[in-house]
Amino acid sequence: MTAVLEHALIERLAAGLPRSPHQLNRLHESDAELVRLPGTGAVLAVTTDALEEEVATGLYDDPELIGWMLVTVNASDLAAVGADPLGILLCQTLPPETEPGWLDALQRGIRLACEAYDLPVLGGDVNAGAAPHLSATAVGLVPDGRPLTRRGCAPGDRVFASRPLGLGNAYAVTRLDPRCAAMRGAINYRPRARLAEGRLLRSFASCCMDTSDAGIATLDELMRRNGVGMRLTTGVAAWTDPTALALAQAAGLPPWMLHAGPHGEFELVFTVPEDRVSAFLVRAGAAGWAPVPLGVVTTEGSGLALDLGGSVVRLDAGRARNLFTETRGDLARFIAALAALPTPD
Amino acid sequence: MTAVLEHALIERLAAGLPRSPHQLNRLHESDAELVRLPGTGAVLAVTTDALEEEVATGLYDDPELIGWMLVTVNASDLAAVGADPLGILLCQTLPPETEPGWLDALQRGIRLACEAYDLPVLGGDVNAGAAPHLSATAVGLVPDGRPLTRRGCAPGDRVFASRPLGLGNAYAVTRLDPRCAAMRGAINYRPRARLAEGRLLRSFASCCMDTSDAGIATLDELMRRNGVGMRLTTGVAAWTDPTALALAQAAGLPPWMLHAGPHGEFELVFTVPEDRVSAFLVRAGAAGWAPVPLGVVTTEGSGLALDLGGSVVRLDAGRARNLFTETRGDLARFIAALAALPTPD
Repeated sequence: MTAVLEHALIERLAAGLPRSPHQLNRLHESDAELVRLPGTGAVLAVTTDALEEEVATGLYDDPELIGWMLVTVNASDLAAVGADPLGILLCQTLPPETEPGWLDALQRGIRLACEAYDLPVLGGDVNAGAAPHLSATAVGLVPDGRPLTRRGCAPGDRVFASRPLGLGNAYAVTRLDPRCAAMRGAINYRPRARLAEGRLLRSFASCCMDTSDAGIATLDELMRRNGVGMRLTTGVAAWTDPTALALAQAAGLPPWMLHAGPHGEFELVFTVPEDRVSAFLVRAGAAGWAPVPLGVVTTEGSGLALDLGGSVVRLDAGRARNLFTETRGDLARFIAALAALPTPD
Repeated sequence: MTAVLEHALIERLAAGLPRSPHQLNRLHESDAELVRLPGTGAVLAVTTDALEEEVATGLYDDPELIGWMLVTVNASDLAAVGADPLGILLCQTLPPETEPGWLDALQRGIRLACEAYDLPVLGGDVNAGAAPHLSATAVGLVPDGRPLTRRGCAPGDRVFASRPLGLGNAYAVTRLDPRCAAMRGAINYRPRARLAEGRLLRSFASCCMDTSDAGIATLDELMRRNGVGMRLTTGVAAWTDPTALALAQAAGLPPWMLHAGPHGEFELVFTVPEDRVSAFLVRAGAAGWAPVPLGVVTTEGSGLALDLGGSVVRLDAGRARNLFTETRGDLARFIAALAALPTPD
């Protein structure tokens, strides 16, 4: 199995640091850290995420979107473990010369997201610095002590996404590829953390993860954590966001590539044991939610099989994940390298 | 009362953001955010702090010290509310060209502090960026639901510090004033968050705050939050760290000025009702701890009175707090402006 480049630095930094006997998850096993609260039956979920490359590269340049995303990326990790949100802390470094209008729009984005998620702001830290730097920490509670994690699925479980995927990379393509700049207006990128869906999934899902790194990296991570493969029997076009699909066609990209870039849409990908699927779909439907069936969990070593519409291919999802780092963000090289990856099933 | 410049930006950023009905503290009322955990009697304490100016200005340039301080500034906020530490999350932005030796020393400082405080690392976020940026979030629990806050003291309560103060600014003077560079070796700045002391104080103190911004800003904040004054009847030299005192003498600075700069030592300043002082001192002594008596809480409007050894002066502590910002960090101007502040009692 291809090693994931991003994991190496995290493992190096974490080496030797003391861990908690109350923590349920090990490194990479969960979107949020899960800590049993001594003296209670509850589990605390806590997660921290910075917006760094997204702002530095100009991928996010609208301050209201930056504020929205600062909250969303953290709230989404609470969603993926099925936690009830308790609140968020904001850590904001701002240059003294920050324009008041920019700052107002940033705070408006933060406020709109917090209101959308019923996620109060508990506090934070404000500093002056040469460049803006934004991070946040979201806190949630799993009252019954049984959170979702990335582990727990078995061959035969069904694979779902909370909504069609692909808008994250479609947005990135319109921002980073000048040839697609004309299509910017068509992509309305304002992802929503799926907190209500995550809570509902606590009763049904065997594993869960958000698509912050887009679909294929998420599927790859779930396969790694569970020692399984996955066969996506639904054709890729059917689980790709319609706007993203239109962009792929206009840009001459095969739709599956919109799931292979590094920028996601903060949906949930999860598995449900086959004998629970009917009950799950009834409950989801009653909540006005239509989960998207992707396929089925298969045995270890079988890797990721994708139905490209007519042909079924296998994809080394670990290789796909590393390509963006390996090609140093050069979009043309990345796409050329991706195109060489699928092999016939 | 002089308005605090630092508060204005925080209040502007927080304006309009949703707050939690479960949160016990309002803005500025506590060193850590305090949230009642639904369905339990416990209170969660959570706090986030970045090291920004300290690293950017070169005040901290030893990577092991930077790692130690990243943990300590956050652990100290848990200490000030008397929480049992649950863990810490680290948010690290690192330039790709970071030297391995520098990174190893940073992680060693983090590890040593976490071990010293029995504070496990729960997780974090790692990003690539142009400049290093470090923040963290510490999480703790107050099982009985009765944390310490900055509010609760009344006239007649006794004022204490957990240890002698002043080492934070003494260290800063040796780093920022070239004339004092020769004295760097004499100042061993490696503050310890006072977690055990904070937990003990939960049974005795009426209010508590850490000296992250040094002594006078801490006393000023406690006076503001409680609508009281304070008379420090112990001479300043007696509650100043002996090494800091020696530096003040060598540098020709009045010792009280070492408590008026902006860089603290992460001790606790707290008040104990007069009728609880004896029991408190017995319990502290049994724990091998000798708190430093500073003085007494007085009524509103009486401000801060300091015994300079022979003469008693009044100090507009709010003005003193703002001077470093107003003089834009120019040490000579700052010291000259400070010198003009005390007025006869």
